[in-house]
Amino acid sequence: MSFSLLETIQSPADLKPLERRQLKQLAQELRAFILQSVSRTGGHLSSNLGTVELTVALHRVFNTPEDRLVWDVGHQSYAHKILTGRRLDMATLRQQGGISGFPKRSESPYDAFGTAHSSTSISAVLGMAVAARQLGKRERRHVAVIGDGAMTAGQAFEALNNAGVTPDIDMLVILNDNDMSISPPVGALNHYFARLMSGGFYAAAKNVGRAVLQHVPPVLELARRFEGHAKGMMARPATLFEELGFNYVGPIDGHDLDALIPTLENLRSLGGLQFLHVVTRKGQGYKLAEADPVLYHGPGKFDPEVGIQAATTPAKQSFTQVFGQWLCDMAQADEKLVGVTPAMREGSGMVEFHQRFPQRYFDVGIAEQHAVTFAAGLAAEGLKPVLAIYSTFLQRAYDQLIHDVALQNLDVTFALDRAGLVGADGATHAGNYDIAFLRCVPNMVVATPSDEHEARLLLNACYHYPGPASVRYPRGAGTGVEAGNSLAPVPIGKARVLRQGRHLAILGFGTRVPEALKAAQRLDATLVDMRFVKPLDAELLNELAADHSFFATVEEAAVMGGAGGAVQEHFNSQGITVPLLQLGLPDRFIDHGDQSGLLAQLGLDAKGIEAAILQRFPTLKDLVQKGVSQQAAS
Amino acid sequence: MSFSLLETIQSPADLKPLERRQLKQLAQELRAFILQSVSRTGGHLSSNLGTVELTVALHRVFNTPEDRLVWDVGHQSYAHKILTGRRLDMATLRQQGGISGFPKRSESPYDAFGTAHSSTSISAVLGMAVAARQLGKRERRHVAVIGDGAMTAGQAFEALNNAGVTPDIDMLVILNDNDMSISPPVGALNHYFARLMSGGFYAAAKNVGRAVLQHVPPVLELARRFEGHAKGMMARPATLFEELGFNYVGPIDGHDLDALIPTLENLRSLGGLQFLHVVTRKGQGYKLAEADPVLYHGPGKFDPEVGIQAATTPAKQSFTQVFGQWLCDMAQADEKLVGVTPAMREGSGMVEFHQRFPQRYFDVGIAEQHAVTFAAGLAAEGLKPVLAIYSTFLQRAYDQLIHDVALQNLDVTFALDRAGLVGADGATHAGNYDIAFLRCVPNMVVATPSDEHEARLLLNACYHYPGPASVRYPRGAGTGVEAGNSLAPVPIGKARVLRQGRHLAILGFGTRVPEALKAAQRLDATLVDMRFVKPLDAELLNELAADHSFFATVEEAAVMGGAGGAVQEHFNSQGITVPLLQLGLPDRFIDHGDQSGLLAQLGLDAKGIEAAILQRFPTLKDLVQKGVSQQAAS
Repeated sequence: MSFSLLETIQSPADLKPLERRQLKQLAQELRAFILQSVSRTGGHLSSNLGTVELTVALHRVFNTPEDRLVWDVGHQSYAHKILTGRRLDMATLRQQGGISGFPKRSESPYDAFGTAHSSTSISAVLGMAVAARQLGKRERRHVAVIGDGAMTAGQAFEALNNAGVTPDIDMLVILNDNDMSISPPVGALNHYFARLMSGGFYAAAKNVGRAVLQHVPPVLELARRFEGHAKGMMARPATLFEELGFNYVGPIDGHDLDALIPTLENLRSLGGLQFLHVVTRKGQGYKLAEADPVLYHGPGKFDPEVGIQAATTPAKQSFTQVFGQWLCDMAQADEKLVGVTPAMREGSGMVEFHQRFPQRYFDVGIAEQHAVTFAAGLAAEGLKPVLAIYSTFLQRAYDQLIHDVALQNLDVTFALDRAGLVGADGATHAGNYDIAFLRCVPNMVVATPSDEHEARLLLNACYHYPGPASVRYPRGAGTGVEAGNSLAPVPIGKARVLRQGRHLAILGFGTRVPEALKAAQRLDATLVDMRFVKPLDAELLNELAADHSFFATVEEAAVMGGAGGAVQEHFNSQGITVPLLQLGLPDRFIDHGDQSGLLAQLGLDAKGIEAAILQRFPTLKDLVQKGVSQQAAS
Repeated sequence: MSFSLLETIQSPADLKPLERRQLKQLAQELRAFILQSVSRTGGHLSSNLGTVELTVALHRVFNTPEDRLVWDVGHQSYAHKILTGRRLDMATLRQQGGISGFPKRSESPYDAFGTAHSSTSISAVLGMAVAARQLGKRERRHVAVIGDGAMTAGQAFEALNNAGVTPDIDMLVILNDNDMSISPPVGALNHYFARLMSGGFYAAAKNVGRAVLQHVPPVLELARRFEGHAKGMMARPATLFEELGFNYVGPIDGHDLDALIPTLENLRSLGGLQFLHVVTRKGQGYKLAEADPVLYHGPGKFDPEVGIQAATTPAKQSFTQVFGQWLCDMAQADEKLVGVTPAMREGSGMVEFHQRFPQRYFDVGIAEQHAVTFAAGLAAEGLKPVLAIYSTFLQRAYDQLIHDVALQNLDVTFALDRAGLVGADGATHAGNYDIAFLRCVPNMVVATPSDEHEARLLLNACYHYPGPASVRYPRGAGTGVEAGNSLAPVPIGKARVLRQGRHLAILGFGTRVPEALKAAQRLDATLVDMRFVKPLDAELLNELAADHSFFATVEEAAVMGGAGGAVQEHFNSQGITVPLLQLGLPDRFIDHGDQSGLLAQLGLDAKGIEAAILQRFPTLKDLVQKGVSQQAAS
């Protein structure tokens, strides 16, 4: 396909002179470009195909970047990136040094607010709208585009609730409602959206152009209607969003520029608190993605002509798969097990569990706070909940973990996926802080498996532990070790010595253990897979301190407050003073890029670990060489 | 007043044989007892006076503790405690070794789920209801009592949204709607409640007894109505809670046992997803509290006959007051300053700021997640938001702090009140983890003032710093030092040496500095007020390491991951190996009690600090004594 029109668009200003017919052609080219581009780089596909027309219409109607446009979650912002001067950069998407898969303030002035975790857009846009009011920017418009999934998160509700009583601001919230028939809705709100779409409220809205105009009342009428509400004299049922103070318009077809553009023009001229319900289809225009939007949600590279093919040679098992298999096995063995996910069934490896144990599977929606307290409620009654959650999303439920689970010492097992660096998703999704934020919480167990088999053993241990316990494991493939089928726990707080060496003890926590082992072999060092950050194997640490002169800790987590610090605190509490080198992630946000490449650049591969140790303990080299020559002589 | 009837109630079973007339008398006695008791111990008053009848009715109608009753926030649970065998224990309320001011599972089987932070009750009850279903406890009933303020938090919405699609569970949510005329509602939801109360929806509900029965349709009718909704054939506007799948009943008078008891009996027999809107008045029955429920929200001891008297001799200024004064002064000097609070105007010392700068004051409701992203939105547009939040509540917005503020390096100042131990509120409100969970986040500045004057200086420094910065200060009175009126910043990451000594360097972070100084004087030690946990004063630490043999860090925060660990990490990164003692809060939840008493018990007063240091560094004693005799001889 030719991109002749698309190639003329350097910025949204180039959209302004286009006729409606040309805009439609542009949307076609944009959709084809996204398909081609994502099939070459990997990335998010279904969501981006679904928002092509909406993006064209928004940049046509609004005066970006002076008008502020915030994409909730932001994985649907590719068309936005392409229209705002980053078409050629799409070839570098999510690669090290390339553009981000999410809006990013430092990348473009058109990215008004960085997003990636869901449901922040309304809060951010409200803040920006208030700032515009305070700074006298009365002409500036503010738009948040949020999906129906993200709308179920509490923060979106908090923001709507606050916006509804904030006077004199301009704010348009666009609900991008994906076709509900594709996947089962998980919350009552989704049922509600389906009812709105069913036409019960707005039967006349089928004739979209006219109906929209009818449903955009002038401001005075709005005020009168609000007053009417207060007096209980409503003529028709108000939508939930009207109850919260917004003017609700919709639903309209989000793939129809003839509906979108006049509606947005109307809403832009009205200002105030506006809510537009737009219906789109994930994967729109690419039959394979329309048919299976979940498969095409975030594919790797593929041939668009044939679609995604099943892998011929099975790759190494991912930690996510190890978890999924373990969950099914343990559920089979223990009927008290229940599984909880905040809307991440696929990502967390719970598809098989859902199929086999539907009564014990709970998808609570994008609602991390609720997920954790809900699990606490289950545990308070004697069930054994396993909450599968990405490390980065557990940040959303930190208070609930402390206040509802740990403080009550309830038996909840946290399976933390995507711990450490996450690759293409970058800094927004990094699971780098969990060790620091979990180990300071009393009662918590924190386990760090070093391979697939260890992951299984530590899940067993944490599951059987009768209190709050977490197992953190990384994104992607493991080491190739068989996970096995054990359901037996290993002892809590006990490490395993993988290599007995001299002078130096390397204490590994989690994913870096295999690399640390290689370094230990070259340095004739003792290598311990510590297994647990909390509780530490105090006895072993004391023994090691008695016959080693140097210590190094290695972890794929922030050094600040991390596992190395836990070891050091233990030594300090025992009055043991030994030189310790703490290796882990540095104190800065780390952008997207290949996981193993990034880890090597950060000095967390075998070579980097060895080099850092020798730099920190220069006398070790002589000791090791002396040891080697002694061995050779004997 | 005599408590003759109340004294016969040892458990809710004793309510069952009472006639309506006696229950009314019991409510009277209960109210008088609460007033007397709280006036003697201090504690929460207004909210407890408001829920007397509701508590009597719930324990009369429901079969507690087999039926599960969860009080959201839980500060309104005194009547519940009194009726469930803890009447005499009320004399020990919130005192060390006494009963908690909140429901607590370890305290009583009637406390089905511990609460204290808001908006967890619906999530917890949903988990319990699902567990009952899974375990075949089909007769068990589940009740959450939640205030209108707590209902505005996102987690409550997340839980309602999830409950609405959870089949075959029993769950009654009681909205305890306090009289809205007392304080201005902060969210659109509160406006909505007011509209419901205004009678627009349920004009007929004035005749409560009859109307309630009318509005409790049988289950089949419910199902039919839901189906009707789906087809858009509603006869009357559905309430928001009906849209989410609940059967809405109310509003009814929450002080009228003749309305409450039959309604609850009805709802109990119905089962399923029920929502009851109850209207109560904070402070009900005590004129002074009715007139000023905020003043009587959480009073200290007072004479109920005369009410709370203004303090005659002004106490030392609290850190909260220092913050409040600073906020006004800085706002006067810099019109870019805006203040944000998640519904804690009084607690955070923002009353004067609100009065003087109403256009720059933003109470976003109980909505910590939204508060932080909202502040990020303000900062993204060049305003300078100051978010005042309790340390323990910042846990609610941890992800937003990382993802929306720190990652984008936005200029938000976090004023963290109630850092460290909080006294009577106990473990649920402890601000012990903030140093650990903040310092692992890139870009964050973490400041720990040691007195009122330092608090002001560090607020200046963090406010002027053009990125995310936090100042943590404790609950209650400071040291008596004048805060002054400076608006000039001190340098970020620079400590101040308060005493130059020998051999030992004590590094103090925050509130324990004055006690550490006393210990330093007795030990002839160097004493540094570190001021910043992050960034540390690296230069000074390196200098100290050159001429000190022993180090101790002191902080009012969890040792695990705390400020002492930051110092140790710095030494490790520099290849400096020195003996270090880390003093701070131990790795366990610390119950309520007097702050200074608890700190002394934990060894964080001067005596404890000195003793711990001498125990850890036994040779120091000789060195100090030698130093003293050398001085004496010279």
